[in-house]
Amino acid sequence: MNRNISRLAVYATLCITFLAASGQADEGMWQPQQLPEIAQQLKTAGLELDPGTLTELTGFPMGAIVSLGGCTASFVSPKGLIATNHHCVYGSVQYNSTEKNNLLKKGFLAKTLNQELQATPGSRVYVTEEITQVTADITGDMGTGISGIERYKTIDKNSKTLVAECEHDDRYRCRVVNFHGGMEYYLFKQLMIRDVRLVYAPATSIGKFGGNVDNWMWPRHTGDFGFYRAYVGKDGQPADYNEDNVPYEPEHHLIISAKGVAEGDYIMVLGYPGRTNRYRTAAEVKNQFTWSYPTAKAYREDYIDIIKSNCAVGSDTRIKYESNLAGLANYAKNYGSMITSYNKGTTQQRKDQLEKDLSSWIAELPDRSKLYSSSLKELEQLILQGQEYQDRDMVLAYMGRTTMMSTAYALYKLANESQKPDLERDSGYQLRDLPRFEQRMKSIDRRYDSDIDKALLLHFIKLYATIPHIQHVKSLDNFFDISKESSIESLRKLLDGMFAETKLGDEETRLAWMNKSPAEFNNSSDPFIKLAVATFKEREAISEKAKALSGDIQAYRPKYMQALIAFYNDQGLPVYADANSTLRITYGNVKGYSPEDGITATPFTMLEGIAAKQTGEYPFASPQKLLELIEKQQYGKYLKKDLGSVPVNYLGTLDITGGNSGSPTLNARAEFVGLVFDGVYESIIGDWDYDNDLNRSISVDSRYMLWVMEYVDGADNVLDEMEIVYQ
Amino acid sequence: MNRNISRLAVYATLCITFLAASGQADEGMWQPQQLPEIAQQLKTAGLELDPGTLTELTGFPMGAIVSLGGCTASFVSPKGLIATNHHCVYGSVQYNSTEKNNLLKKGFLAKTLNQELQATPGSRVYVTEEITQVTADITGDMGTGISGIERYKTIDKNSKTLVAECEHDDRYRCRVVNFHGGMEYYLFKQLMIRDVRLVYAPATSIGKFGGNVDNWMWPRHTGDFGFYRAYVGKDGQPADYNEDNVPYEPEHHLIISAKGVAEGDYIMVLGYPGRTNRYRTAAEVKNQFTWSYPTAKAYREDYIDIIKSNCAVGSDTRIKYESNLAGLANYAKNYGSMITSYNKGTTQQRKDQLEKDLSSWIAELPDRSKLYSSSLKELEQLILQGQEYQDRDMVLAYMGRTTMMSTAYALYKLANESQKPDLERDSGYQLRDLPRFEQRMKSIDRRYDSDIDKALLLHFIKLYATIPHIQHVKSLDNFFDISKESSIESLRKLLDGMFAETKLGDEETRLAWMNKSPAEFNNSSDPFIKLAVATFKEREAISEKAKALSGDIQAYRPKYMQALIAFYNDQGLPVYADANSTLRITYGNVKGYSPEDGITATPFTMLEGIAAKQTGEYPFASPQKLLELIEKQQYGKYLKKDLGSVPVNYLGTLDITGGNSGSPTLNARAEFVGLVFDGVYESIIGDWDYDNDLNRSISVDSRYMLWVMEYVDGADNVLDEMEIVYQ
Repeated sequence: MNRNISRLAVYATLCITFLAASGQADEGMWQPQQLPEIAQQLKTAGLELDPGTLTELTGFPMGAIVSLGGCTASFVSPKGLIATNHHCVYGSVQYNSTEKNNLLKKGFLAKTLNQELQATPGSRVYVTEEITQVTADITGDMGTGISGIERYKTIDKNSKTLVAECEHDDRYRCRVVNFHGGMEYYLFKQLMIRDVRLVYAPATSIGKFGGNVDNWMWPRHTGDFGFYRAYVGKDGQPADYNEDNVPYEPEHHLIISAKGVAEGDYIMVLGYPGRTNRYRTAAEVKNQFTWSYPTAKAYREDYIDIIKSNCAVGSDTRIKYESNLAGLANYAKNYGSMITSYNKGTTQQRKDQLEKDLSSWIAELPDRSKLYSSSLKELEQLILQGQEYQDRDMVLAYMGRTTMMSTAYALYKLANESQKPDLERDSGYQLRDLPRFEQRMKSIDRRYDSDIDKALLLHFIKLYATIPHIQHVKSLDNFFDISKESSIESLRKLLDGMFAETKLGDEETRLAWMNKSPAEFNNSSDPFIKLAVATFKEREAISEKAKALSGDIQAYRPKYMQALIAFYNDQGLPVYADANSTLRITYGNVKGYSPEDGITATPFTMLEGIAAKQTGEYPFASPQKLLELIEKQQYGKYLKKDLGSVPVNYLGTLDITGGNSGSPTLNARAEFVGLVFDGVYESIIGDWDYDNDLNRSISVDSRYMLWVMEYVDGADNVLDEMEIVYQ
Repeated sequence: MNRNISRLAVYATLCITFLAASGQADEGMWQPQQLPEIAQQLKTAGLELDPGTLTELTGFPMGAIVSLGGCTASFVSPKGLIATNHHCVYGSVQYNSTEKNNLLKKGFLAKTLNQELQATPGSRVYVTEEITQVTADITGDMGTGISGIERYKTIDKNSKTLVAECEHDDRYRCRVVNFHGGMEYYLFKQLMIRDVRLVYAPATSIGKFGGNVDNWMWPRHTGDFGFYRAYVGKDGQPADYNEDNVPYEPEHHLIISAKGVAEGDYIMVLGYPGRTNRYRTAAEVKNQFTWSYPTAKAYREDYIDIIKSNCAVGSDTRIKYESNLAGLANYAKNYGSMITSYNKGTTQQRKDQLEKDLSSWIAELPDRSKLYSSSLKELEQLILQGQEYQDRDMVLAYMGRTTMMSTAYALYKLANESQKPDLERDSGYQLRDLPRFEQRMKSIDRRYDSDIDKALLLHFIKLYATIPHIQHVKSLDNFFDISKESSIESLRKLLDGMFAETKLGDEETRLAWMNKSPAEFNNSSDPFIKLAVATFKEREAISEKAKALSGDIQAYRPKYMQALIAFYNDQGLPVYADANSTLRITYGNVKGYSPEDGITATPFTMLEGIAAKQTGEYPFASPQKLLELIEKQQYGKYLKKDLGSVPVNYLGTLDITGGNSGSPTLNARAEFVGLVFDGVYESIIGDWDYDNDLNRSISVDSRYMLWVMEYVDGADNVLDEMEIVYQ
């Protein structure tokens, strides 16, 4: 069967619609409350627990699952020990590293509580305690008659009001999230733990083995795991970092399985998948793959080149940018792969066909026609409108990733927003956002180098100068004196001066600006503040226009989604919502796949594969001790007999995306059998187009984690703290 | 089991000796007379024929197997139709191609006998009819006392005498070949058919699908097949090309199986493997992988670059060099892969260990010690001696690949050798060699371009100038005025003049020089003749020294091999000889493998894999018709049900090497089930170090051949002529 995949992938007849909503096989990121709907499928796949238990947020196992904001994690001891991916704790390891004491290289293990290190400032652990449907509170009885900006502001204000009420208890963090493009809204209430510490991370040569070369690839041999601990005040409540804080005691924690999984076993992941786009229109898909991704990929590659050519490997400066580089490279590769898959596959044809099928289905009955017929056309119109200035938007977005410019912009924006009542401020500038804002201002020193920042800004201003003139921001042109006559040399000189003069490189200065008035900004002679001030009005106008468009789209996309959901339901198919960083469940099985005709990816890799990849050069330079253990076949309790070795990573049919990183992979009894950390190359386009034959998740095997902890790193204290089962 | 491969490959404990001689599993290129020795293994593997029948050279199926000199082939009809690889008929397709009528691109099919085209001049079909042990006749009672050059000349003369006697019947071509480095000699008597015609070759987009990208790779989808026909005079005897010649009627031909093979099936290949080096000493292996291959690879890459940068794709000039380019690239990749495998694996350690084990075994008994103890040391000494001038030898060898220089050298050498009695002439210059020599002189026009030849020669002279001075050839230095002061510009000018003046680019002129005396050469003003004359004496001296060394080695390598064979036999292991372009049998099974931990290569590829690789650009630009047939799932009788499609290529455990190309792959009943044409990447180092887990042959499936013939090319006449069985 597997051998037929290429044929299926390439020649899937066009009348087959997208499987996106089908809930067939292993596709689907289900909201907890949807589980009763798919109880039968869960049982069939092998779940031994009562599916009902998975709907209880504060019960087992859901209560053990937490979000780190961007990553998922889980409690694995009664003392607040948290397991997640190495790449999720990477920033904290980096934060505590210096050229002399390079923890990234050596790895880090706290043998006692007081050796544990503060995680990156701003690190948080979120525990979802309540999810409430709030659609009526958000959209109320707005008709279609109101303007886009009114709609945007109404939804925004209603959301903020609910969030403010919810956060009245300051231990909590709350979010209102839209589902199905605004068809439904839910309020998420999460306990927010503010003191997070680094307990243990293996050396990067284990935790990031294979680096960017192996990223999104199979075969894989990455020990992508690390441990945090959540701390709270002595009263057991969330508190800012304090030496006297004590480990948080969660109600539930996961049991670690040293038995692991076998081919075909049921597995599931509970976690916070970030974003998918499985219900986008054909026109949106086309623009994304033929314009957005290719452009963003090129911009990221430029960004990487500039950083790399301005600092040596291993230098302090390079260490500052490693995390940034990793993120840039990760998505440059991601985009490249998606473009390749898109060009090779039939995604676009099938999207086109889906819309035709949907239209036919709508036209079948007059009632349907009346309800849905205009939904797609209206949405389409708005989407086109949003693309008019996309050259500008993309280049400004990447320019906005440079540090000094974005810092000045943010500070001046804060000064202006602070003049408004809290509920009317833009997200990110409300009172609730200030601690995080402050952390951001504080952590700049560890991730910023003025020469690199200058080179990046220069590059993107040059790029900006090449976009169609009609899209230009006049105040920006004026500030940098951008015209047909302007030379690179004069621009370079201008930036030299700006970076020499600005004081925003200084933490105290930045923090001081957080409390200044717009007038003080207007009078400042700091060149980056001047830039922020000079361009502010025009940037705000752009932002206002985007909000209005967003308001319009929020009126029409739900109508399109209603039509699509009705279409699928009419075929008896349940529909899950696109990922939106909220808690979801995906289930499946341990299973290989055929990436191409004549090749099968088998579901497990093993220790010897690490040794086979060894080159001695990053990213294939394992610690000598690890290599020696492999040569000695020191497998211990972690041997998988049919494999003849310790399994390192395994493939599964879990439907995951970014944000699921760090999620525990659970077996049929919800025991911890690993951490999901990546997907295979062929499933990257899965964010847009799921393929049962090619979508595969990659987990680091719990047995490899335990093996590294026991034999390589001697992390006995961590092992002792966890509850490990061997059967 | 497969998943353990990487571990085994990397960590095979060092005390395991090379399996080279073990005859275990599927390793081994057996001489026909050895088959009774391994009859049990053949039966166990699945052979249904009596192994004894395979020893009869003129019986079935051996009588249907022929050599093309460099490739193997087989009779597949009673009318002399010959099946072989596309890459074995490629030169003939190229020979008949022009820019306007590009048969390489279009493919070629003769619908009737009189449409068949002459193969490249010099093409021959050899049918081995007798193999005779002649060791005593060759080495006689030579002691170890005689000098190297005497030994060389005695062996050479004895061989030539036997060959001359054998070729008394001028229908035959005979060779004396040494086995086990000179331990044994055999006389091979082959019927030589001199009129060979091209019948059918699919388009290069099928026959060379994947080109150099896929070369040595799996998954593979190459339709590497083509057909010749052997012609003889009306009397049924070999004859030069003549319109009146008639198809040769072989006593035996193969039956084509349209049923094909399945995973695990017995397969075997009868053919003429070129050269393996499985019994080389540790020192030889080291020099080969750390000096010879890296150097030759670099030289070949230079060669390719220079050709490519001097002619456009598709130009007449490029067509002239395509075959040359293919050969250069093939082995550049081959060498690169061998270097990689060597550096990654434990070949050298195990070679070292083997020699230690052999020494211990020899030292065990005084009698053994007496017989064998000095054999390795003496051989080692001679090998070192041979490496002293290897920089010079390598660069002169590649310089000698340029056309004008090598043509002049060959012609002057011929003039000199012609002064000697025939039996004393060097090989290649005897009377028997003259027709081939003449063909070589004739075919130059179709493969030569003066600008490219000049650029290549310039490059290698520059390279030559950089080798240690002690290795320099004084007469060559003098001719090209090579010294520390000489400039590239003056060299370029000199070559410009030489290429402008030489008449050797003209066929008539070359043929005329074949009949001239040394004196006429000495008086010639042709610059390349002058070069040949000026350097001749010194080149002859170098050649004489090499012969003397070769004579010495022929005294000592047999002693080393005797020791090694005794060592293996003592462990109950039969020993096969290194490949030497003589008829061998290798058997095995259809079987996938694991190229690396986490990946399995499945044994069959199928039609849909071709479509999946389609890019529209060479080498992945299949004919539109083929793609349409795939899309329509037009599988016909050639469907492999469990695969769900027509199989294209398959993997087997056959122990093959260059020279086996074009060999029919036979099933347990000796039916034709495909053509072997390549090995996988991991088995390239197999010429030096066989690994049962990684060595895999690639065959084009008979079903794909028949499918292309029936549906794509409409080669009904060829299909009708063959005997095809469907069960």
